[in-house]
Amino acid sequence: METVVRARSFWHAKIRIDTDRPIEFVDLTDRLRALVAEAGIRFGFVNVQSLHTTAAIVVNEHEPLLLTDFATLLESAAPAGHYRHDDATIRTVNVTADERVNGHAHCRALLLGASACINVIDGALQLGRWQRVFLVELDGPRDRDISVLILGEGGR
Amino acid sequence: METVVRARSFWHAKIRIDTDRPIEFVDLTDRLRALVAEAGIRFGFVNVQSLHTTAAIVVNEHEPLLLTDFATLLESAAPAGHYRHDDATIRTVNVTADERVNGHAHCRALLLGASACINVIDGALQLGRWQRVFLVELDGPRDRDISVLILGEGGR
Amino acid sequence: METVVRARSFWHAKIRIDTDRPIEFVDLTDRLRALVAEAGIRFGFVNVQSLHTTAAIVVNEHEPLLLTDFATLLESAAPAGHYRHDDATIRTVNVTADERVNGHAHCRALLLGASACINVIDGALQLGRWQRVFLVELDGPRDRDISVLILGEGGR
Repeated sequence: METVVRARSFWHAKIRIDTDRPIEFVDLTDRLRALVAEAGIRFGFVNVQSLHTTAAIVVNEHEPLLLTDFATLLESAAPAGHYRHDDATIRTVNVTADERVNGHAHCRALLLGASACINVIDGALQLGRWQRVFLVELDGPRDRDISVLILGEGGR
Repeated sequence: METVVRARSFWHAKIRIDTDRPIEFVDLTDRLRALVAEAGIRFGFVNVQSLHTTAAIVVNEHEPLLLTDFATLLESAAPAGHYRHDDATIRTVNVTADERVNGHAHCRALLLGASACINVIDGALQLGRWQRVFLVELDGPRDRDISVLILGEGGR
Repeated sequence: METVVRARSFWHAKIRIDTDRPIEFVDLTDRLRALVAEAGIRFGFVNVQSLHTTAAIVVNEHEPLLLTDFATLLESAAPAGHYRHDDATIRTVNVTADERVNGHAHCRALLLGASACINVIDGALQLGRWQRVFLVELDGPRDRDISVLILGEGGR
């Protein structure tokens, strides 16, 4: 939650998250509410964007057992195992020195999506009673960057 | 389709939907077109956001048999059955008096997403020939609220 | 990448893509960067929207083997086979002369989503090191239209 830039009716912040586990749900909601309050807008959009291909942004409930259910769902939808992306004998593109076995993590990210756009109404991030916004780590531990762009009016 | 608030170039409306079945696709397209017409904008964005963790927003074709195929897909991707979220012997967080067995519904919502952002071009909601916008009920029957925020210019 | 319309702080373009294969990932990133440069904005949003119900927009890595892994994932999540949408003996709605057997393609599109909203920061489309924006063809070959709406400020 650094580097808030004010550009007329746009505000930008980067949120840095260091994850600890292979799959992890990091609740961003309080940080996002603080950014909206700082912008001081009445109406607007907040677009929350993961800058990674093995980390996603989702909106759902923050109930710890449910988060383990979500992990089980992702492991079932895209099981760890053989992915051509991880086959060093045939791969030639985007190869780095610290290449991870993470084809499954890319597939899980594909199913979840890289961003969420949330309304701001009457000065508040518009979320239902149980809704929270999460970064979903799918190939942790990693350092992750999230781009938050707020557009709005009616601000201070 | 109530409470349209005009705030310079933003318009907000809440749509209330009462669903009848466990899985149900409710076509919001005509209501959204009416809201865009009411705003009178030429160019803009419409962000349609479910305020629930067991109801999603999607864009696809309104063909009744296809909607049953979609239900089958969701039942296959996240089958009803044992979810830790539904295990009253271990759960302690966010427990309510009228708790439902709905871990599968949360998982299905996670795969679909809580919102859709749609362009407005030349005064019209920009949808392809077969595209329609749906609320997807995943744990009905329920009363559902949808937040619609329109940003635009060129209006009356 | 045609028909760029300037409407105060909105810019609209349609991108036409002709696909060659049943499943195909078409990288739109360079075209989107060019549109952002043409708009000349410093901060803003780019909403990239497929106008089709069997083609999706996703953000992930452009590594050719990974794209084949993604195709395998989609074939596993929604296998080709029997869909009620494709059963001419019972279907009566939205039937066209050139109807395709494509229930699986609709289901795959449902899981991926029709659009992606991407931030523009300091004049650049905000994407992580490995992120690229793709049209995902799921029922090709076809001619596809993508609507790109840019909102921003600080332009030339």
